[in-house]
Amino acid sequence: MSQTPGTVTTQDDLAVVREVLAEYGEMTRAALEPYLPKWEPRRHLYDLIADYPRRGGKMMRPTLCLATARAFGARPEEALRSAVAIELLHNALLVHDDIEDGSEQRRGRPTMHEMFGVPIAINVGDTLGLLSLRPLMDNLWSVGMRLAWRIMEETERMARESAEGQALELGWREQNVTDLTEADYLSMVLKKTCWLATIHPLRVGALIGSRGGVDVDRFIRFGFFLGAVFQIRDDLLNLTGDETAYGKEVGGDILEGKRTLMLIRLLRVAAPAERARVEALLGLPRIERHVEEVAWVRERMDHHGCLDYARGIAHGLAGAAAHELDLAFEGVPASRDRRFIQSLVTWSLERAA
Amino acid sequence: MSQTPGTVTTQDDLAVVREVLAEYGEMTRAALEPYLPKWEPRRHLYDLIADYPRRGGKMMRPTLCLATARAFGARPEEALRSAVAIELLHNALLVHDDIEDGSEQRRGRPTMHEMFGVPIAINVGDTLGLLSLRPLMDNLWSVGMRLAWRIMEETERMARESAEGQALELGWREQNVTDLTEADYLSMVLKKTCWLATIHPLRVGALIGSRGGVDVDRFIRFGFFLGAVFQIRDDLLNLTGDETAYGKEVGGDILEGKRTLMLIRLLRVAAPAERARVEALLGLPRIERHVEEVAWVRERMDHHGCLDYARGIAHGLAGAAAHELDLAFEGVPASRDRRFIQSLVTWSLERAA
Repeated sequence: MSQTPGTVTTQDDLAVVREVLAEYGEMTRAALEPYLPKWEPRRHLYDLIADYPRRGGKMMRPTLCLATARAFGARPEEALRSAVAIELLHNALLVHDDIEDGSEQRRGRPTMHEMFGVPIAINVGDTLGLLSLRPLMDNLWSVGMRLAWRIMEETERMARESAEGQALELGWREQNVTDLTEADYLSMVLKKTCWLATIHPLRVGALIGSRGGVDVDRFIRFGFFLGAVFQIRDDLLNLTGDETAYGKEVGGDILEGKRTLMLIRLLRVAAPAERARVEALLGLPRIERHVEEVAWVRERMDHHGCLDYARGIAHGLAGAAAHELDLAFEGVPASRDRRFIQSLVTWSLERAA
Repeated sequence: MSQTPGTVTTQDDLAVVREVLAEYGEMTRAALEPYLPKWEPRRHLYDLIADYPRRGGKMMRPTLCLATARAFGARPEEALRSAVAIELLHNALLVHDDIEDGSEQRRGRPTMHEMFGVPIAINVGDTLGLLSLRPLMDNLWSVGMRLAWRIMEETERMARESAEGQALELGWREQNVTDLTEADYLSMVLKKTCWLATIHPLRVGALIGSRGGVDVDRFIRFGFFLGAVFQIRDDLLNLTGDETAYGKEVGGDILEGKRTLMLIRLLRVAAPAERARVEALLGLPRIERHVEEVAWVRERMDHHGCLDYARGIAHGLAGAAAHELDLAFEGVPASRDRRFIQSLVTWSLERAA
């Protein structure tokens, strides 16, 4: 067990993470079901909408929302619809991201557009995004109109940050940008990953727990560090993970030309001829990128220590997260939920899937 | 000037339509500008978001919302943000529809995905849809929280109907369904076109004008008939229109395999060999459909009177719309706005672009 600077996480803490993820994940799944209606047209819409959400994700996003709400004093029921909305929107974005990235697998099965084509997949993603508004409207009954409205505003902000992050990353690929820095990567991840994965669940949970009384900007820094650790780990698993547990094609990020910390590092430290070869590969249309070249890039990443380099950055960010957590949760009493959130940092750093 | 059964529309009435479209269209355009922010990233997101809305559409949807609100007693400012939201969402759906349909032109210029590729275009459409929530949130300041919330619920319903209509149409193409009836076509158009184009603007306008006091289901039938007339005319213009005025590639619907009334009719009345040839064409991937075959289908449509057949149905629907209008606007005093809405039926039936 490695140790995150600024905190000590034990095996017991990681067991709490797994336990809370299982418990709140199950609670969210049950509450989500009624929002996946069996309306017509079934075959080209409502059957497909239920597909990604039922493939079984980690449920980190809704669980973080529920845990934060409880840590701040709410009953879980009060935050449950917001948690469901987060999970639905997450799945909506996955469907569209998979098209945009040309991904072939998601949670161990073919992606939506691989199965049903791009037109139908776009519409399925649109509809999932739209369905995520329904639990937010139903929030009226759990938290009242004023707070429900506030959560709607939060959702609009978060979705906008996500779209901006996606535009940054797509722009890099479209322009074949190869002179990126870690700061560029982290700015993109802040928007594309962290707002939906961590910052928004924290903000909404705290709003519900405090009945709108807390200044939610206090969660941006902690959410950023935690989310960045989570994303870097995700990128590492794409290179080293067990495909069955991880659920995506290993090496897929390189094939898709995704600007990960490891690729950015490789472009920085590679010899000129190597760098030119990587740049040429990235400049090809996706369909012309071959697995042999992917394997070569992967080997060069190992040769130049790019994975260890990324692990080092993730470790540093985890330390910063532990520090920021104390500020963000100042005055919040100790509880299993707070312990979950604290231990989530180490879990994000070390998770195997 | 043809005469719509059940009403008489004069040249003066059509002048009112043009005048109100110009006036409310301009008002909406001005109010929409602040919702197209010049934030970063500009190049791959915010510059592109402004593109479709600034190409200049007919502005029928927001104008209908504003006119209905005024006819029911509101000041235009009270409905302006809802009108802006409608226009933004309409543009969002156009970007995604153009990808899904493989369309090449929109409002006289290349479609978003033709210019910037599918991944960026998907994200632009997503973000435009998201930005349409902002004026709905700002409705708080024009109509108060309760009515603003109600309009949000209406929007969710409308967007869901649109997505279901889109799924129906995409499903027909994906399965190469060729035994459709007029009733199938009209069910699809009710969802895909009418909810956004007419029913929703009517409902929201009336809600604002009546301060939430009116039963909005009274607008479904009128909106359906009016919207169907508008859509059939659109499909006819795709075959006969002046490309410059119309802004899309003439004959594009046939190339895209779109199930219009004219195509459905042709499949019904064609001789077996002809029918088989049309079905074979529709079964090809879009890229293998050639302009010569499109021209042949077009010629067969003329031969079998399919365009006149569709015109006849549109004429009948316009008569039904005029009848339903009197029921939907019962008790609403005469005004320029009410006259606009009434004359919109004939305008939709006869418009040249």
